[in-house]
Amino acid sequence: MFEIPPNHPRAESLRIREKLIEGFEKGIVAKAGLIAHGRGEAFDYLIGEKTTEPALEAAKVAAAAMLIAKHPVISVNGNVAALVPKEIVELSKVTEAKIEVNLFYRTREREEAIKSVLEEAGAKEILGVGEATSATIPELSSWRRKVDPRGILVADVVLVPLEDGDRTEALRKMGKIVITVDLNPLSRTAQWANITIVDNVVRAIPNITEQAKKLKNFSSGKLKEVLKSFDNRKNLGKMIEIIKDRLTKLAEKGIYIPEASQIYEEMRRIE
Amino acid sequence: MFEIPPNHPRAESLRIREKLIEGFEKGIVAKAGLIAHGRGEAFDYLIGEKTTEPALEAAKVAAAAMLIAKHPVISVNGNVAALVPKEIVELSKVTEAKIEVNLFYRTREREEAIKSVLEEAGAKEILGVGEATSATIPELSSWRRKVDPRGILVADVVLVPLEDGDRTEALRKMGKIVITVDLNPLSRTAQWANITIVDNVVRAIPNITEQAKKLKNFSSGKLKEVLKSFDNRKNLGKMIEIIKDRLTKLAEKGIYIPEASQIYEEMRRIE
Repeated sequence: MFEIPPNHPRAESLRIREKLIEGFEKGIVAKAGLIAHGRGEAFDYLIGEKTTEPALEAAKVAAAAMLIAKHPVISVNGNVAALVPKEIVELSKVTEAKIEVNLFYRTREREEAIKSVLEEAGAKEILGVGEATSATIPELSSWRRKVDPRGILVADVVLVPLEDGDRTEALRKMGKIVITVDLNPLSRTAQWANITIVDNVVRAIPNITEQAKKLKNFSSGKLKEVLKSFDNRKNLGKMIEIIKDRLTKLAEKGIYIPEASQIYEEMRRIE
Repeated sequence: MFEIPPNHPRAESLRIREKLIEGFEKGIVAKAGLIAHGRGEAFDYLIGEKTTEPALEAAKVAAAAMLIAKHPVISVNGNVAALVPKEIVELSKVTEAKIEVNLFYRTREREEAIKSVLEEAGAKEILGVGEATSATIPELSSWRRKVDPRGILVADVVLVPLEDGDRTEALRKMGKIVITVDLNPLSRTAQWANITIVDNVVRAIPNITEQAKKLKNFSSGKLKEVLKSFDNRKNLGKMIEIIKDRLTKLAEKGIYIPEASQIYEEMRRIE
């Protein structure tokens, strides 16, 4: 598209955007995925485009849940495949989780394109492609409910980053422990999940991996202590407070733009 | 894509999204426009997806400025053309403003596609297409600075809905009175403009038109009174307060989702 100046105040956000557009051009990302990314950008801006303390805490709890799980599964959609393919493969190795392609707008072409990207990133086994998606999630209609009987269907813990609200709710109702990454702390996904990491997926996935490496040799008892101390509702509440504080700070900073309000004086020149 | 259930809590937002995707498929909307729309969706959600009192006030002041102007111009980009073509034509008639196609990612094909949509919507004259964009805005590079010498170049008041921050700043530095519609009250565009309507463009444009009809027979003195009473900085401050209040209310509502935080109890089932 165009060169991103390295000193641009939001260069990292622009680089992530370019990656997503590249994914769109490769057929990995859906049109709705571009719009969803924009919603994420807005909330990332509001949280400060960095990992907050509550998000790091949630990443730690997510790592503990994945390590305790008997059948952890990582669900990958187009945006996740475009933004963090290597990071997903690394996390799946550290936590011994399976990877399943899980699309809202499912087409065979997109499934295969996502599979290729994950294989290039080092994945050995990828569930949820083609005829493998023979099982269904109850309460969801059409192609949105297709899952792999070796993956999400039998999983006890599922990590579903950037998931749709209806599906998150359906997964909870199936009795799954749901971990999500969602920049909007008020979304239905954020509210329905058991563990919600309110952070950009490009920061959250490596954070879970790092935490999992630290927790890997903990006893089951110690891991349970990590879970016991966590309250998703309180964590989301902290994120909302962070956004409100930041809105206040940004508003104070904003008003230093010169002459922004001198409309009447300027209009006099027209006469 | 899929049927929108009429009772969906955010049906209107989904309908607007479908219109934008249709515009993308017609070659009117750019990929970056889809992402930008997502950012708008997030902020629209935060303001409550309806026109607020400060936004209506700004729309009234915008109408007064356009009526006082000697050379008002409405700048139209891909998203605006996809979402409100008829509303733009109506506003241009009521305020006797010229319409100019003004693109961030300028290609002849997109210019022509936007021109067609506006003509179908009843526009008689459309500036800023093809060789007509022979003038340039200082301080902006390449195709982003092209403007029509009969339009934005000589305008005293420009309405630039959904505009980029760099360009808004450049227009201000050229001495234009800048009116914008931007859902993010903290964006550089929102902060640099003289009059910022923090509202969805589908609501804001008809609001300006309605206000212009009411003010049309006002004397120049009365119109100036409308401008004199307005402070964009204060108006933006009110919008930020509205968002903060709504975050508080949504957070309270959100916590009623059942069992969202009982991670520890649920994890015990795995063992």
